[in-house]
Amino acid sequence: MSKDRLVIFDTTLRDGEQSPGAAMTKDEKLRIARQLERLKVDVIEAGFAAASPGDAEAIRAIAEVIKDSTVCSLARTGEADIRAAGAAIKPAARGRIHTFIATSPIHMEKKLRMQPEQVLEAAVAAVKLARQFTDDVEFSAEDAGRSDVDFLVRIFEAVIKAGAGTINVPDTVGYAVPAQWRERMRELLERVPNSDKVIWSTHCHNDLGMAVANSLAAVQAGARQVECTINGLGERAGNASLEEIVMAVRTRSDVFKLETGIDTRQIVATSKLVSSITGYPVQPNKAVVGANAFAHESGIHQDGVLKHRETYEIMRPQDVGWVKNRLTLGKLSGRNAFRARLQELGIVVESEEQLNHAFARFKALADKKSEIFDEDLQALMSDETQEIELEHYKLVSARFHSETGETPTAALTLSIGGQEKQTESSGSGPVDAAFRAIESVVQSGTELMLYSVNAITTGTDAQGEVTVRLAHGGRVVNGQGADTDIIVASAKAYLNALNKLHSNALKLNPQAETI
Amino acid sequence: MSKDRLVIFDTTLRDGEQSPGAAMTKDEKLRIARQLERLKVDVIEAGFAAASPGDAEAIRAIAEVIKDSTVCSLARTGEADIRAAGAAIKPAARGRIHTFIATSPIHMEKKLRMQPEQVLEAAVAAVKLARQFTDDVEFSAEDAGRSDVDFLVRIFEAVIKAGAGTINVPDTVGYAVPAQWRERMRELLERVPNSDKVIWSTHCHNDLGMAVANSLAAVQAGARQVECTINGLGERAGNASLEEIVMAVRTRSDVFKLETGIDTRQIVATSKLVSSITGYPVQPNKAVVGANAFAHESGIHQDGVLKHRETYEIMRPQDVGWVKNRLTLGKLSGRNAFRARLQELGIVVESEEQLNHAFARFKALADKKSEIFDEDLQALMSDETQEIELEHYKLVSARFHSETGETPTAALTLSIGGQEKQTESSGSGPVDAAFRAIESVVQSGTELMLYSVNAITTGTDAQGEVTVRLAHGGRVVNGQGADTDIIVASAKAYLNALNKLHSNALKLNPQAETI
Repeated sequence: MSKDRLVIFDTTLRDGEQSPGAAMTKDEKLRIARQLERLKVDVIEAGFAAASPGDAEAIRAIAEVIKDSTVCSLARTGEADIRAAGAAIKPAARGRIHTFIATSPIHMEKKLRMQPEQVLEAAVAAVKLARQFTDDVEFSAEDAGRSDVDFLVRIFEAVIKAGAGTINVPDTVGYAVPAQWRERMRELLERVPNSDKVIWSTHCHNDLGMAVANSLAAVQAGARQVECTINGLGERAGNASLEEIVMAVRTRSDVFKLETGIDTRQIVATSKLVSSITGYPVQPNKAVVGANAFAHESGIHQDGVLKHRETYEIMRPQDVGWVKNRLTLGKLSGRNAFRARLQELGIVVESEEQLNHAFARFKALADKKSEIFDEDLQALMSDETQEIELEHYKLVSARFHSETGETPTAALTLSIGGQEKQTESSGSGPVDAAFRAIESVVQSGTELMLYSVNAITTGTDAQGEVTVRLAHGGRVVNGQGADTDIIVASAKAYLNALNKLHSNALKLNPQAETI
Repeated sequence: MSKDRLVIFDTTLRDGEQSPGAAMTKDEKLRIARQLERLKVDVIEAGFAAASPGDAEAIRAIAEVIKDSTVCSLARTGEADIRAAGAAIKPAARGRIHTFIATSPIHMEKKLRMQPEQVLEAAVAAVKLARQFTDDVEFSAEDAGRSDVDFLVRIFEAVIKAGAGTINVPDTVGYAVPAQWRERMRELLERVPNSDKVIWSTHCHNDLGMAVANSLAAVQAGARQVECTINGLGERAGNASLEEIVMAVRTRSDVFKLETGIDTRQIVATSKLVSSITGYPVQPNKAVVGANAFAHESGIHQDGVLKHRETYEIMRPQDVGWVKNRLTLGKLSGRNAFRARLQELGIVVESEEQLNHAFARFKALADKKSEIFDEDLQALMSDETQEIELEHYKLVSARFHSETGETPTAALTLSIGGQEKQTESSGSGPVDAAFRAIESVVQSGTELMLYSVNAITTGTDAQGEVTVRLAHGGRVVNGQGADTDIIVASAKAYLNALNKLHSNALKLNPQAETI
């Protein structure tokens, strides 16, 4: 790896997934992994194999299909973790094991209950074992930001000798400020005797709003890998945003003098996919991928802005994949046009059966909505993929009524495991009535944690995309539904979430361990 | 001002308002200004007096009621701008005029079409004129980040001589990186001969995700004022977030050795108010004010997290005003309990009439929803204030019906200027039908730009808060509506937006000029 290349390590599927309620099914992880490969990230951290059999299976499935990016599993230093990670990445063209242990006094004492010498021994043993599965081993010192530098120097020297090729320095609690973080990285590179043998990496959290600046400060001190996530997803305030890191390095190449392998034109599509699957919205004033990031594209074109475009623009919207909505499809569009448009959007249709199913739904939508935008197709396909996989609970038909002074009612026909059931309920609103009607037959005992709606495109006949987050027995799932009728979309989203709870593919969110 | 105090200059009402669609009515600006005073910001930039008579009036109204914070108006260097700003801040206990002109070659040549000498003369004249209205004058060099340092040194020296007390160095296009921005501030403080006579300030944009880090880098070089906004609102990717700046300075007092006057416990309430009024959501993984910023408060309490709380927590949620939802009120709560709770929430009720009106609505809500949370009250009062002010269009009653295979219908009774009108329409969903029914009588010719819904509290009987953004003839407004019935909330939000368009209080969004 030449010195002028910055390695982009995406951990959306691991650290990002640890966000409350962002747990994904295997199929969802695969869809994101394929898009990350299209974005040309160097390393995809696909999960944490020892966290659950479901996560191990998802990593393995990703390792089987991804060819261009390295596929990585996180692992604690214990033997079982390393073996689980090794097995999960086995099918990968390029596989990495990323092992970590905490090195700060507070974490060693309160969480690990281990002495520093024991921590050092565990780290060395883990790296050596990991090397039996792959030549590409990364070591992270959890909470490095609050660790003693002398100890970090010793443990890093030892794990490099043991065979680690990448050394990651995380600011686990998001406490660093740039000048200090740069100095910490500089000191490590200078003091670790064999520091020139490895690629140095940083992994920053955004609790004080400085994850991107801290990551880039470490890069200025010599780090050549940054760990980041799409949309800055991650626990608490999240991780450094991949899109901000990449565009800062590119826009300020005069300062950083580095390049990444990223195809920046895939950034917006990746952002939308991750947002849609996780149910985590992107705020309009988010850098690079927020709807207003390029004000000129936001639908408000005032003369003053247009006249002085170059005076305010440091990046071009098309370089990160913003495209104007195209009226590509409508009622009269054929099957080939539909398939071609999906390909342009990077949506992979697995089978002819799925394409037929999707096309039928597209035609039904085109009957209700005159212009079908790219975003409608993305919503439709999102819904589609879910239906094919998980269809224990299905909405057959619905009737809603509400009137001032009366209690709103919903009457639904559901298909449950292939059997049709009628159900009716009233509620404080029609959405409440629909959810109560579903619960009166399903009796899932779940708790509703989040309900949100976004119109996918503008105009009054827009499709509404509803996200419903349900919790049950320690598991949290997101369901999505899209329809021009918001109540129908809500019922679909609720059923989609129930289907996910019903399936066995999901794991418990492994929040107790993190870097 | 002692050297260990950092001045917090909030520009939510000026730069924040320049976000597409975030234009506010005078009453909305007043409500935010009152909350900013409660937050104890040092300076409130209330608007840009010369932009429109409406904005001048809003600044004046704010200057009349705010006692603890300095009230500021932006002004270009022209005489008319300075006079408009001077008149607008006249009633203030402490008033500031903030004048600016661009100093970068690209802006001077392409936008101003002025020579550097002319720019310098205009700046000096503006500061001198401004001093006739107030002793507190701030000067900003627009696009300072891309300006020639020699020229900045000359113009700053000259405006300080002319009487400016604060010198602001903006990174208008969000192009800076922290190490470089710190060096730029350091160089200016060193080279401007009379730099010790003034307070230095910075104003950073977030296009590359580094606004907070750049602002704090300038602080490390000696800046003692930061310009920022609530939620990082602002054009494109927005400004530095006030809450992140303040909490970074506080959490890392070991590095910054500074204090602010901010009452941090008001941060979350302020964030929610600004989000609700502007229609700009805050993403869950936003630092400090995002719903997940303190994962332990997000409703998911896993053993591992709870056990190690102190190992991952660098700030305490209660210090920024996160409180657990309290079941304070319900059907049986009386008028006094209701009034007391509003006071605790910082909601000011202007008159007994408004309180009576609000209490009646509270009782109606308590009939539909068993537990009334703080957030419900905030939504209810938000709606309430609007109704009192602007009631040209009102929803009297509504009936909705939708059924699989049939076209959804809405039948509404509206009050328009006091007269009741019946209207009916079908649509692609019940929301679409309701909007079409309204348009069939109002015929506003507006374009729907955004439609979003958030459940305000969890549980299936949550109130839905709907935001509708409408555009018409270059004006963009947000309407809000809250109800347990999402369709009713949608109709209310649409009517609220129409009421704002109907009122004359709104100005055109002055997007062509900015710093």
